[in-house]
Amino acid sequence: MAPLTNARVIFNEIPKGLPEPGKTTVFDASENIDLDKTPLDGGFLVKTLVLSIDPYMRGRMRDPSIKSYMPAFEKGEPLTNFGVGVVLRSEHPTISVGDHLYGMYPFREYFVSKDANSFRVLENKEKLPWSVYVGVGGMPGQTAHHAWKEYAHPKKGDVVFVTTGAGPVGATVVQLAKAEGLKVIASAGSEEKVAFMKSIGVDVAFNYKTTNTFDVLKKEGPIDIYWDNVGGESLEAALENAAMPGARFIECGMISGYNSESYHVKNLDKIFARGIHLFGFIVIWLTKWEDEFYKTIPGMISRGEIKYKEDVKRGLECVGQAIVDVQTGQNKGKSVILVADE
Amino acid sequence: MAPLTNARVIFNEIPKGLPEPGKTTVFDASENIDLDKTPLDGGFLVKTLVLSIDPYMRGRMRDPSIKSYMPAFEKGEPLTNFGVGVVLRSEHPTISVGDHLYGMYPFREYFVSKDANSFRVLENKEKLPWSVYVGVGGMPGQTAHHAWKEYAHPKKGDVVFVTTGAGPVGATVVQLAKAEGLKVIASAGSEEKVAFMKSIGVDVAFNYKTTNTFDVLKKEGPIDIYWDNVGGESLEAALENAAMPGARFIECGMISGYNSESYHVKNLDKIFARGIHLFGFIVIWLTKWEDEFYKTIPGMISRGEIKYKEDVKRGLECVGQAIVDVQTGQNKGKSVILVADE
Repeated sequence: MAPLTNARVIFNEIPKGLPEPGKTTVFDASENIDLDKTPLDGGFLVKTLVLSIDPYMRGRMRDPSIKSYMPAFEKGEPLTNFGVGVVLRSEHPTISVGDHLYGMYPFREYFVSKDANSFRVLENKEKLPWSVYVGVGGMPGQTAHHAWKEYAHPKKGDVVFVTTGAGPVGATVVQLAKAEGLKVIASAGSEEKVAFMKSIGVDVAFNYKTTNTFDVLKKEGPIDIYWDNVGGESLEAALENAAMPGARFIECGMISGYNSESYHVKNLDKIFARGIHLFGFIVIWLTKWEDEFYKTIPGMISRGEIKYKEDVKRGLECVGQAIVDVQTGQNKGKSVILVADE
Repeated sequence: MAPLTNARVIFNEIPKGLPEPGKTTVFDASENIDLDKTPLDGGFLVKTLVLSIDPYMRGRMRDPSIKSYMPAFEKGEPLTNFGVGVVLRSEHPTISVGDHLYGMYPFREYFVSKDANSFRVLENKEKLPWSVYVGVGGMPGQTAHHAWKEYAHPKKGDVVFVTTGAGPVGATVVQLAKAEGLKVIASAGSEEKVAFMKSIGVDVAFNYKTTNTFDVLKKEGPIDIYWDNVGGESLEAALENAAMPGARFIECGMISGYNSESYHVKNLDKIFARGIHLFGFIVIWLTKWEDEFYKTIPGMISRGEIKYKEDVKRGLECVGQAIVDVQTGQNKGKSVILVADE
């Protein structure tokens, strides 16, 4: 078989504010691969099917001397993030041709790896689309599931407030909370997202760009559980409207500050005055919940008990713009790059 | 017996910034009391011995329409706070003449109460000075003890950072942490306080006014447990230098923001990026630890295992200035007003 193009998306430059396609990240189709002959050295050859675009990727576009929970992207090397692909060839004892692997992927069409431990072979008895496994069935779903199990401690009658309630993390939190019979308030940044939130059972869904978060929480709260994906003004409004004492704030992300100076949250004193408990976490520290996740969540998805919405773009050329869309909230659902069909 | 003066300290006016003696609070000696004849109506007559001046009192000098964990002071009425007194007369079945009562006292020399449940009869087998029972043996000590038990979860090798480490709360935390064999870093605002912190076993004691908190934590950390009494820049430095993941931040108070605009803490994203857990609390919500406190702490104090330092002022006339001193950190130890000898 003749060599094929093995396109990739390279991390080119650390952005100041928002990433810029073609500058921060560069699509490059200059490399080739011979799928039959490329040496495996005891490893396996993977064809990338889907790649995930997630908000946290912005944090990896930094000077590598700054330590954080995930390594910085390497300049001149492909981006990496969660993906699903299929094994084309294998010399590895635990990986078979045709296996579908979930894990951290380089942003390229084909790659060889020897590290079987960093991938999970997906069973997919439910025959879900592979893209689901980077969304509600992957890292975002795990983020919601694991932290909800670990920190939410829901009680009958609790009121829950979820930010980015139409995103894959927020929407999963919403549906886990509704499964417990709780009242759910949720915000997002467009009318389309508000409609989706209503369709998955949110009791009070609103557009934070046109409706004041503080006013909604004042009327519909106080809140017992806050799922924070945005920080800033939403966090300030939640602190002010926390049930007293013992509200649980699950601190999952603060996208409002990723691309600009952080907002001055002026009422941190409410943390002690209202006896609020805040739980920061990164999903990779909660892997003890992973087996339970794969046992329960794909089934709930296939039965329609967890609904989701995807924003699928086709081809690695779209990665740069998809990253910007996710940082600015322009995506219409979980952002996924469909790299290839099987 | 002829009527005696029954002096008091009245809350006169809500302050804008720092409270002002004679304006915010007014000493008033215009009332009298006849100790033999004043009617008890089934209650008991108490002679106030000591009153406590605590940082949190600033929060009660507010518009009563603003709800908080403790009621606002009433204009024209005496201040109230923790105190110890002795019972001079009683018609109450559970309160005897000579009992020493700990509880919430009006700032006056004598008063009648019927509410026995809001006081604790102090046994004081250890014969400690009564002032101790509003300091390390009272609310501040309970604050340290209860929250340490509930939230610190100390592990061998943990590094602890305590702000206001010379105050009654901070110094108790320091000594509980040292009793567990942990490394303790602690800050305060004068050389005298630094010397006291060293005398109670602090490993790294520093004056935050002359030494940069961030630099100390960078060198001596990362920190596993942070006892926050001040908020603002110290909180920012602690967030930046938290051990990863799972550092416990015990949020006890934020005195740096009580009398001025709050400092802009710019790195709240570290809460999730470092997996930090913050526990806001008010001591009145942790009373389940109270019996254990009275069983263990007075004994530790009498054996010298918990040392303390007091700043005793004599007479209700000194209350206004003592409040300012506590808000500005001018006090030399736990601030106590000695109202009368027995």
